[in-house]
Amino acid sequence: MYSFKNDYSEGAHPRILNALIESNLVQEDGYGEDSYSLKAIELLKQKIGRTDVDIHLLTGGTQTNLTALSAFLRPHEAAIAASTGHILTHETGAIEATGHKIISIEVDDGKLNPSHIKSVLDAHTDEHMVKPKLVYLSNTTEIGTIYKQNELEQLRDFCQVNNLILFMDGARLGSALSSTGNDLTLSDLPILVDAFYIGGTKNGALIGEALVICRDSLKEDFRFHMKQKGALLAKGRLLGVQFHELFRDNLYFDLAIHANRMADLLRDEITKAGFAFLTQSLSNQIFPILPNSLITELQRNYSFYIWEKIDSDHAAIRLVTSWATKEDEVLAFIAEMNRNL
Amino acid sequence: MYSFKNDYSEGAHPRILNALIESNLVQEDGYGEDSYSLKAIELLKQKIGRTDVDIHLLTGGTQTNLTALSAFLRPHEAAIAASTGHILTHETGAIEATGHKIISIEVDDGKLNPSHIKSVLDAHTDEHMVKPKLVYLSNTTEIGTIYKQNELEQLRDFCQVNNLILFMDGARLGSALSSTGNDLTLSDLPILVDAFYIGGTKNGALIGEALVICRDSLKEDFRFHMKQKGALLAKGRLLGVQFHELFRDNLYFDLAIHANRMADLLRDEITKAGFAFLTQSLSNQIFPILPNSLITELQRNYSFYIWEKIDSDHAAIRLVTSWATKEDEVLAFIAEMNRNL
Amino acid sequence: MYSFKNDYSEGAHPRILNALIESNLVQEDGYGEDSYSLKAIELLKQKIGRTDVDIHLLTGGTQTNLTALSAFLRPHEAAIAASTGHILTHETGAIEATGHKIISIEVDDGKLNPSHIKSVLDAHTDEHMVKPKLVYLSNTTEIGTIYKQNELEQLRDFCQVNNLILFMDGARLGSALSSTGNDLTLSDLPILVDAFYIGGTKNGALIGEALVICRDSLKEDFRFHMKQKGALLAKGRLLGVQFHELFRDNLYFDLAIHANRMADLLRDEITKAGFAFLTQSLSNQIFPILPNSLITELQRNYSFYIWEKIDSDHAAIRLVTSWATKEDEVLAFIAEMNRNL
Amino acid sequence: MYSFKNDYSEGAHPRILNALIESNLVQEDGYGEDSYSLKAIELLKQKIGRTDVDIHLLTGGTQTNLTALSAFLRPHEAAIAASTGHILTHETGAIEATGHKIISIEVDDGKLNPSHIKSVLDAHTDEHMVKPKLVYLSNTTEIGTIYKQNELEQLRDFCQVNNLILFMDGARLGSALSSTGNDLTLSDLPILVDAFYIGGTKNGALIGEALVICRDSLKEDFRFHMKQKGALLAKGRLLGVQFHELFRDNLYFDLAIHANRMADLLRDEITKAGFAFLTQSLSNQIFPILPNSLITELQRNYSFYIWEKIDSDHAAIRLVTSWATKEDEVLAFIAEMNRNL
Repeated sequence: MYSFKNDYSEGAHPRILNALIESNLVQEDGYGEDSYSLKAIELLKQKIGRTDVDIHLLTGGTQTNLTALSAFLRPHEAAIAASTGHILTHETGAIEATGHKIISIEVDDGKLNPSHIKSVLDAHTDEHMVKPKLVYLSNTTEIGTIYKQNELEQLRDFCQVNNLILFMDGARLGSALSSTGNDLTLSDLPILVDAFYIGGTKNGALIGEALVICRDSLKEDFRFHMKQKGALLAKGRLLGVQFHELFRDNLYFDLAIHANRMADLLRDEITKAGFAFLTQSLSNQIFPILPNSLITELQRNYSFYIWEKIDSDHAAIRLVTSWATKEDEVLAFIAEMNRNL
Repeated sequence: MYSFKNDYSEGAHPRILNALIESNLVQEDGYGEDSYSLKAIELLKQKIGRTDVDIHLLTGGTQTNLTALSAFLRPHEAAIAASTGHILTHETGAIEATGHKIISIEVDDGKLNPSHIKSVLDAHTDEHMVKPKLVYLSNTTEIGTIYKQNELEQLRDFCQVNNLILFMDGARLGSALSSTGNDLTLSDLPILVDAFYIGGTKNGALIGEALVICRDSLKEDFRFHMKQKGALLAKGRLLGVQFHELFRDNLYFDLAIHANRMADLLRDEITKAGFAFLTQSLSNQIFPILPNSLITELQRNYSFYIWEKIDSDHAAIRLVTSWATKEDEVLAFIAEMNRNL
Repeated sequence: MYSFKNDYSEGAHPRILNALIESNLVQEDGYGEDSYSLKAIELLKQKIGRTDVDIHLLTGGTQTNLTALSAFLRPHEAAIAASTGHILTHETGAIEATGHKIISIEVDDGKLNPSHIKSVLDAHTDEHMVKPKLVYLSNTTEIGTIYKQNELEQLRDFCQVNNLILFMDGARLGSALSSTGNDLTLSDLPILVDAFYIGGTKNGALIGEALVICRDSLKEDFRFHMKQKGALLAKGRLLGVQFHELFRDNLYFDLAIHANRMADLLRDEITKAGFAFLTQSLSNQIFPILPNSLITELQRNYSFYIWEKIDSDHAAIRLVTSWATKEDEVLAFIAEMNRNL
Repeated sequence: MYSFKNDYSEGAHPRILNALIESNLVQEDGYGEDSYSLKAIELLKQKIGRTDVDIHLLTGGTQTNLTALSAFLRPHEAAIAASTGHILTHETGAIEATGHKIISIEVDDGKLNPSHIKSVLDAHTDEHMVKPKLVYLSNTTEIGTIYKQNELEQLRDFCQVNNLILFMDGARLGSALSSTGNDLTLSDLPILVDAFYIGGTKNGALIGEALVICRDSLKEDFRFHMKQKGALLAKGRLLGVQFHELFRDNLYFDLAIHANRMADLLRDEITKAGFAFLTQSLSNQIFPILPNSLITELQRNYSFYIWEKIDSDHAAIRLVTSWATKEDEVLAFIAEMNRNL
């Protein structure tokens, strides 16, 4: 049984484990003030091309989202998210637990645009309603789509005019920036959004997300918020060592490119076999619509999620690839699919 | 410069890193449903001698405290803690951030007893005050002292009669249960407290605390609370692999015994040198009271915290040992102390 | 300018003010333990026909909703509400501010049924999502519709089977129970729902809502929650005196009957004039769809809210009547409408 | 049985009820946008001598404290209060329920000074602890003492230098400003503190506290916070009418002067009788230390709280006077005391 269930099925890239071993017995200060974390942050600033951003290393996506949003918002302020947004659907009310409403916008492609946000602003006009304040994007989105530079520019401009915070969940940012459809680089992001994070967990690390705070007014006292939410690790070095290893050369993007290439391979062959897709994903998650009989056959040797029933005979499945996905297994999956057509 | 600043200065015990490497490329389910976490939990239940407890693996102490207490308490209920309690002093209001007051009791030795708690209950008599509901203990305490079995029995009995939850923060439980003054075992704890945790971070793991919920009424839906607080790791295997390695033989306690032995060595020699201690610690944190001149000398080659000014000529310092503390360094420290008497 | 904007445009029914005057200088205990509050609660229990319910007097709807829901729910549990629900739309995130998500269900008539709720339960299957736990109804709904007995029975049965709490916001319960379409009485409600409130503010009182907690497991320590949320008035007598006066005879329902009759009059004449309505309201809020030109004419002498644009020439307006609405003004409004046809 | 238990035993001053009657049937907008509230706010600004403050009318002290503090503080920021502070002792964790720790300072006289606050700042040095941000004072304090102008100046200067918010709970501000020991006026307060409130409930109103926000940075969006916390009354006129009546001439202070005069009378006679007091109160709450036998005698015809046991034969009692306290009853109490010496 080979799994295409998600991009966190394996441990870490071997180079990361190696870096942990090499650094293991060096004595360091705790809580992210170790030399590895400091070096990792310097390295990230170089890659981003900005020294005026604040960078913090946290353990996972939900933790990063809830720590950032609760730090950025006052009690009456709300976030706006696409209906597919992770904070809306799969974080057990983590944002609401910090006191903030999330306003959902129904979308098909997982992406927000200024007209979506305008409709929310138009509907929230006085103190009897929450005050929409932060726009939550995911890139890649939860359904594999990605944002283009001009789309982010439009969002940025709209947010600036309307005094909104633009926040990007980058749990799968590696895959997004490595997609064949992408026209963004890491260094574009501080110009486009107020805060974003660079996901490690789903791109080769054991755990770890690097939150980049670009807007000055959001930076103050952020470590207090981390500590309060349980996000400051005693052995912060664990995060520092990993990000340092991922970014001291091109490892982070090499891993994402591999993941995307495996997904491209699947997508191309599934397309050739005549099947359609639920979403226009160009990243490491794809959602082919397959006959139920074929799905049953594939499930004999592969594990993956049934995403959505389409009709009585078809369903969309989710296939996720990662830095660890083996090309042989992808080819075997394709062969098995073709055998069962 | 050698550090006695804390017990999380190094990475993990080499066997733990090795276990991570060996398991690294095995595909597993996410969010703590991997086979390593399941096996680690089974192993812990064996060591505790109870199959009817629920065990959850979380990343750090503050996270465990805030997730557990907010899950266990209703909005109007408060925790009671010694004035030295970690949740009161060094967690940036993490418990209050989930809505709960902590009632502080001034103590000298870091420990609570029934009369302390009775005084709180006597003072909280109606709905104009919070309802005291949970008693928070640390073992070892934040100042190195430990609880004896009969002390916990008295607390347990008092809590049962008064319908209070008894919770033990075990960030340093390894050191406590390995102390020369200890008369408790892991299997005593479910009989004595309603929930406790077994600290990994400060006893050889990279990260990880194993929360043991003993009282049935506290168990329901705990994974929802973990997810909501950002405590459910996508790669939960990271915690499972470590706890499995720590408990598949006696490694966990061997590491604590080493840490304590290093502290014992320091304590004995400092005592011989004629110095007193701020607290009666029998664990891996000791607080000798030294002349400032000696402290200055020692600071040339050793790092440690100045804990408290005693008078114009003396201060208490904190020396912390761990699984990684080298005996040679301890001996060198002692020699340097003796040279400067 | 006469206002049909809402049912809280005037002060209190004169009998209520009189009762305040008569009781004014009697010395009483504070915080709802005065004899007036105790008598009012006894009276309400008689009217409801149940001695085993707990009744608490609070000041307003938002306060009652947030105090009750935060007392009833554990941190990971969510409320379910129709998309028109007051807690979703017009309470500035009050429920989320206590930590709980509200799951919205899109409806046309303001009302929930079991199939709505089932769809929510089907979509919330594990600990990565909130746990739906409480069903929030309003009666009357925010768009004037009401629940029938058999509809509530179906909801009650569904909630019992699925271990859900059924909560009714009764800010306009007087109008609901006095509607020509109603088949419920106060004494039916404890059999049908787990908690509900009897709105005073919008039916003749200065302020005041009487929360009735029917399910035993929701009763414990409720006054702690009230105090914590700022809902326990030092001069709780202010609420007690009013509810006593409203319920010592049939005043509460007499006032609601008047409000409804005024709305019926408007509805009948607007229907005769050939206009349709946005919702099938049989209570004190009606939403006729009128030509913009007519709206402009009516606005010269009457104030009311434009509720929703229908097309380029028409809009729905909201007309609200109350215990204080003067029949002469209703007739004058109708005459003015007819003059402008 | 005559009650000296508190200053909210009766309803409202008759002029207030009269004002409610006179305004009763005038149609007004809801939620504090009625003409009475607007006029009351204008009047208060005149009395305070400042047009640049924001004033909001809320229902009670706990509600005002929790709404203001949660609006003013970010999640990691804490309040500092004297150990006697109402928010610490008698609000059921209302502030903690909004997420904020309150740091307690042990005091004898209910009052804070800069050295108290400095000790807190000195002990809170990094992100592992909450950030002290707001200083909570009560005037009068909970034990009847008052602040002098120079004391507030010192606090103000200290808070400015240390970037702290200075907040005054004025639930009994009328009594404070009318005390024989007072040297402050309403117009001094905006120069001295960042926000304060003028208590109505305990000085002649049915309910109502007028919060005055002086510091510009604390003003934004305050009505959103009020609505979210259930503090925006549909019939906000209820508060507006009362404050307008209290401040359209000197009624507010006349009532406080009466309350204080009644307390002065008690204090003088009790002093003459040879008894000491627990606190140096010059306001409407006094705490004489009496023999238990005398207390028992007095309890036959008078109700009051036993405040604190002093020794086996003595206790301190609390006597509270108000706008409604009858001089005849005070004289009768004194006579009864003297009869029992």
